[in-house]
Amino acid sequence: MDFELKILGSSSATPSFDRHHTAQVLTIGNQINLLDCGEGTQMQLMRYKVKHQRICNIFISHLHGDHYFGLAGLLSTMHLQQRTTPINLFGPKGLAEILTLQFKYGGTQLPYKVNFFEVDTTVSRKIYEDKTMTVHTLPMLHRVPCCGYLFREKEKPRHLLKNKLPSFLTPAQLVRLKWGEDIYNEAGEVVVQNADVTTDPKRSRSYAYCADTRYKEDILPLVQGVDLLYHEATFDNSLLHRADFTFHSTAEQAATLAHKAQVKRLLIGHFSARYKELNLLLEEAQAVFPNTMLATEGKTISVLE
Amino acid sequence: MDFELKILGSSSATPSFDRHHTAQVLTIGNQINLLDCGEGTQMQLMRYKVKHQRICNIFISHLHGDHYFGLAGLLSTMHLQQRTTPINLFGPKGLAEILTLQFKYGGTQLPYKVNFFEVDTTVSRKIYEDKTMTVHTLPMLHRVPCCGYLFREKEKPRHLLKNKLPSFLTPAQLVRLKWGEDIYNEAGEVVVQNADVTTDPKRSRSYAYCADTRYKEDILPLVQGVDLLYHEATFDNSLLHRADFTFHSTAEQAATLAHKAQVKRLLIGHFSARYKELNLLLEEAQAVFPNTMLATEGKTISVLE
Repeated sequence: MDFELKILGSSSATPSFDRHHTAQVLTIGNQINLLDCGEGTQMQLMRYKVKHQRICNIFISHLHGDHYFGLAGLLSTMHLQQRTTPINLFGPKGLAEILTLQFKYGGTQLPYKVNFFEVDTTVSRKIYEDKTMTVHTLPMLHRVPCCGYLFREKEKPRHLLKNKLPSFLTPAQLVRLKWGEDIYNEAGEVVVQNADVTTDPKRSRSYAYCADTRYKEDILPLVQGVDLLYHEATFDNSLLHRADFTFHSTAEQAATLAHKAQVKRLLIGHFSARYKELNLLLEEAQAVFPNTMLATEGKTISVLE
Repeated sequence: MDFELKILGSSSATPSFDRHHTAQVLTIGNQINLLDCGEGTQMQLMRYKVKHQRICNIFISHLHGDHYFGLAGLLSTMHLQQRTTPINLFGPKGLAEILTLQFKYGGTQLPYKVNFFEVDTTVSRKIYEDKTMTVHTLPMLHRVPCCGYLFREKEKPRHLLKNKLPSFLTPAQLVRLKWGEDIYNEAGEVVVQNADVTTDPKRSRSYAYCADTRYKEDILPLVQGVDLLYHEATFDNSLLHRADFTFHSTAEQAATLAHKAQVKRLLIGHFSARYKELNLLLEEAQAVFPNTMLATEGKTISVLE
């Protein structure tokens, strides 16, 4: 099953010509999720051939424009292109009010349902669940209410060893074996030991999206051991004071968090427009956490099972 | 003096990959005016090397997203890049309310003043005047309140023929000559005939920006004889019924208006995403009004004195 992240933009507040504002597409199985939606996201979706009509869920981290000014336009385009499938929209207080006002003055009545879920950015809560994944909020520390999002595949069924399965098993019993149970007879005796006929399931993958934030270690237990951590790295460490003042992080801080949380891979982004070349930030992070990548536009990162 | 129009975008509601939403830059002398501000305008300004800090006035035609969803982002970027110069913003009811709400939730306090002027889109009124130009609204007929804008250079001073000017003239008398007066002595007799010492001034140029609208002839007297007329041409004439239904115009209709108004040049834009090639629209318009151009991105049109 796919578990793939595509970067559409990674520029901080001021866009530079070849770097767009924050937006990411996370595909888990058939589910396409959009994470933040900076200005121009609908054009970036076209550029990178992501079909916006297939997006099921949109997660907005906070109400700074570089993270959501493309949302009203994207929802309008879905409308103009005859979308009828409902969409789930997660974001902080204020988002629904702004969109409602924009659509009121635009005389727009969307022909599909937007299920809006206002998230509490101050706590980690499960806000979404379907057959394949769960999503939890990750409280961030920024100038306005802001949260990240943690995506986890659900536990997968055990693998059945077909050549070892007794023929008398019913479909219901096969399902129980897949979920780790033994099979009993009416007398309560084990007739099939799960360990004899199954092997461990494929592992469940995870992605933590840490949007704009000061460095904060209290999220360590929440992102411990994730397969892929995105963490903002607006500045290099010589601008630590500025990072602190503006409630952002440095590349070294992002890497320190990745190291302490023992994640598998780190992706840094939200680069200040002052950096034409990004090697400085990459090298600073890699010195602390070698398995670091830059969230450059168009990059696709697959997490293998 | 410059009188120059630069096209930043000319796509209708749905953007296509290489055509952005509506935005135009009109330079008159030292004044840089932005006409509409679709999503991505701040990136288009960068692409075409227009310094956004030099924009004095922004005119928004209506509150469909393809004409203003880039505005909050542009104003934010001006803020982040330390603008302190006030800016004038003209637009219909609702625009200030939307921006105020966005900036409230973004925790944004602009360090420069936005002088907002709510325009009545149902009448033609003078809404702006400075040393070099006047701006009038042009009522459009669209699904939401919508107006175009008419830009006219003010009357220019007459040209003084230096070798014919008597030496006794005072500076104040020279100014009077520039504005067409004769010079009298204390007895009330003409001592210098204006026609003897001046020639006609350079002519005053004009640009009419007709945003989204059904074809409507009642604006003919308002745009009569302008140097350059922009008129939307969303569809070709085979889709006349659709144009009418969606309150848009066809290329033939735009050209008919240009012909009847006896304008000097016509510029058509706001092309539907269904047209990959635009020759069909251009040829349709040129059949009625030969001096027609396409509003393609990056095009610059100078109106000569």
